[in-house]
Amino acid sequence: MIQEPFKPAARVAGQKQDVWTIVNEAAAASPIQPIVNMGQGFYGYNPPAFVLDAAKQALEKVDCNQYSPTKGRPRLKKAIAAAYSPFFGREIDPEKEVTITTGANEGMLSAFMAFLEAGDEVILFEPFFDQYISNIEMPGGKVVYVPLHPPKDGATKTTSASEWTLDMSELEKAVTDKTRMIVLNSPHNPIGKVFSKQELQAISDICVKHNILILSDEVYDRLYYVPFTRIATLSPEVARLTLTVGSGGKNFYCTGWRVGWLIGPEHLIKYVSAAHTRICYSSVSPLQEATAIGFEKADEEGFWEESKRAMKGKMDRFNQVWDELGLPYSDPEGGYFVLANLSKVQLPADYPFPAHVASRPRDFKLSWFLIKELGVAAIPPTEFFTDANAHIVEDWLRFAVCKNDEVLEDAKERLRGLRKYIRE
Amino acid sequence: MIQEPFKPAARVAGQKQDVWTIVNEAAAASPIQPIVNMGQGFYGYNPPAFVLDAAKQALEKVDCNQYSPTKGRPRLKKAIAAAYSPFFGREIDPEKEVTITTGANEGMLSAFMAFLEAGDEVILFEPFFDQYISNIEMPGGKVVYVPLHPPKDGATKTTSASEWTLDMSELEKAVTDKTRMIVLNSPHNPIGKVFSKQELQAISDICVKHNILILSDEVYDRLYYVPFTRIATLSPEVARLTLTVGSGGKNFYCTGWRVGWLIGPEHLIKYVSAAHTRICYSSVSPLQEATAIGFEKADEEGFWEESKRAMKGKMDRFNQVWDELGLPYSDPEGGYFVLANLSKVQLPADYPFPAHVASRPRDFKLSWFLIKELGVAAIPPTEFFTDANAHIVEDWLRFAVCKNDEVLEDAKERLRGLRKYIRE
Repeated sequence: MIQEPFKPAARVAGQKQDVWTIVNEAAAASPIQPIVNMGQGFYGYNPPAFVLDAAKQALEKVDCNQYSPTKGRPRLKKAIAAAYSPFFGREIDPEKEVTITTGANEGMLSAFMAFLEAGDEVILFEPFFDQYISNIEMPGGKVVYVPLHPPKDGATKTTSASEWTLDMSELEKAVTDKTRMIVLNSPHNPIGKVFSKQELQAISDICVKHNILILSDEVYDRLYYVPFTRIATLSPEVARLTLTVGSGGKNFYCTGWRVGWLIGPEHLIKYVSAAHTRICYSSVSPLQEATAIGFEKADEEGFWEESKRAMKGKMDRFNQVWDELGLPYSDPEGGYFVLANLSKVQLPADYPFPAHVASRPRDFKLSWFLIKELGVAAIPPTEFFTDANAHIVEDWLRFAVCKNDEVLEDAKERLRGLRKYIRE
Repeated sequence: MIQEPFKPAARVAGQKQDVWTIVNEAAAASPIQPIVNMGQGFYGYNPPAFVLDAAKQALEKVDCNQYSPTKGRPRLKKAIAAAYSPFFGREIDPEKEVTITTGANEGMLSAFMAFLEAGDEVILFEPFFDQYISNIEMPGGKVVYVPLHPPKDGATKTTSASEWTLDMSELEKAVTDKTRMIVLNSPHNPIGKVFSKQELQAISDICVKHNILILSDEVYDRLYYVPFTRIATLSPEVARLTLTVGSGGKNFYCTGWRVGWLIGPEHLIKYVSAAHTRICYSSVSPLQEATAIGFEKADEEGFWEESKRAMKGKMDRFNQVWDELGLPYSDPEGGYFVLANLSKVQLPADYPFPAHVASRPRDFKLSWFLIKELGVAAIPPTEFFTDANAHIVEDWLRFAVCKNDEVLEDAKERLRGLRKYIRE
């Protein structure tokens, strides 16, 4: 007889309160309502009309409401192959080199499930998107961390996201006989760094030398404000090791649609597809169809250029508030997150932080304080570091600017309330 | 250096061609087009207008296009709790006792991921829905099979799905110190059996005695043609061990929407939610909203009664063709599948079956023959058995009747072509 029938498996037993729950619950309980939520990276506006209309039309079609093929709808795979072939400089085979997943997140889990045996190691850079950790640990993988080093003067002046740097000797030292995969993320969340071609070349040299699979999370691939290189395009030797991850939710402003994909060589994609089939069976049909039509029409609609232009405008206009306040930030090269440095903000010594916040690094207190006193929610980035390195970002907060302009202006006005707490 | 970088993990390495691929590819290549596809259990018609309209309206709302809470949209959890509380005879807490998943399939995987450690055993009845196997094996679980015994005279006369029986002593013998969970499925796919209260009582007695968690797959819960008992309602002792699985796709005719849920006690649901968060993060937002509205309006629309009445009508009208042909079938008590016995059908001795069909049991040949000669696709059910027991159903085929009436009439007309192959 089982002695403890309700005991969970180890993989889900750790139920530490995550940053999203802490911030969302604090936001819901703030005395200032409505809150301006710049925490989680969801869009504050709808997908473009040509994508929404496609979704509504898909809902009229019987086959668009029923199971799709497990590897994805042929129309979507074809549209993705057509959209990405020019970037990759070769014809992507829609049937063999593209597979559709239930969002990029389940796509990455599928890749880990496809290739990791228990004890295999995966190299991640710090800071990391927190969901990677559980995705690697589910199949029994072990995470090995390599830090991105922050700009030395990030607390005193505004710096560029490019100044967060990787020490290639540290990376190579992290490689062992058990290193099976490495996860890249460019444009990077939360830093906003777009890895340069030279950096990607150095990383890929190590991967080719050691036969390490590269899982390249490029979900912000349409939002780059400096030249953007996809690591899979560096050479055929790199391409054969690389899976590139994309997201319909990030591309078309619909994070709740759960349509993602992986692009890569057939010898990798076929196992990702197999894992995805075992995890979710198939992915959401009508929104796959709408995403396909989104790709088919995006160029003629001028959507990609407009999308990038609009987001860069939001980013620059929002960051003016930091210039006004004299608070430095890390100017992003891509994506929709900005890290602002609040080391000059002096929190009242007797401020009543609850225990679950008081016990965390200073960025959690800053986040709590902004929610309660100013009505602006942002994410404390120490959540994206191991405990040993959390101190690196304990004065920073992450703000998502993928919001309507009037919301951003409201946020700026609220943030001006910080002035009285700033000490030079 | 990794010696075989492209080698998949063991959990995805077995790439045997599954029954769905074989049948779908054969159907696509049939000389008779269009094929009448009664293979996979997708609906041949759209969701009701009140659900489709709700989906279109949800697409207009910004928050319905962005991330939902990982445990599901509050409106959907509330609608499900309200809909199911009367069946369960108690108030279901929408926040603690309901969790939303990416279809029932990922919901079941989440349950296995939540409670199985490597080597733990899960009892399945044969025949089983094939996806269960990989879902159990992903977290390292081991499947232990207990057969449902077919009606003895199922090859010579039409029988009831209730005549597929479980030997409780066989079930109890299958229990070991490693037995962690049991999977039930009622109404059952592919048999169409609705487990009686007495059967469920006997099963649950064993589970309570040995502290075995019960994962009750009730995705066909609105389609029953005899009294239907939910195992969770038998007693508080059973309820505390039971997770009940439901499906928006099956309930509202939209298998491609990927909205499912689990209902159960908080001490189980919280870990299912945790596993789901690690697998898919969150589930598709606009279709969760539409499913919520579906539940809110279903009673006033008279939908559940109409849904059951319509499906029972399809089932009975379709099965007339077997009576006409003198071929016996297993009359279902629920769901939308019927098993027909084709032992009297004599396949031409020299028929050119391809190797991947010729090497499989007779039901695969029957399926292939019907696709190629009659233009009707059905599923060979030996796929739902272990090799040792496959012989039990090698003369049967599974037909899905969830199709438009004119399609069913077309199928019947085509199946009348079997007459010349029938030998008494």
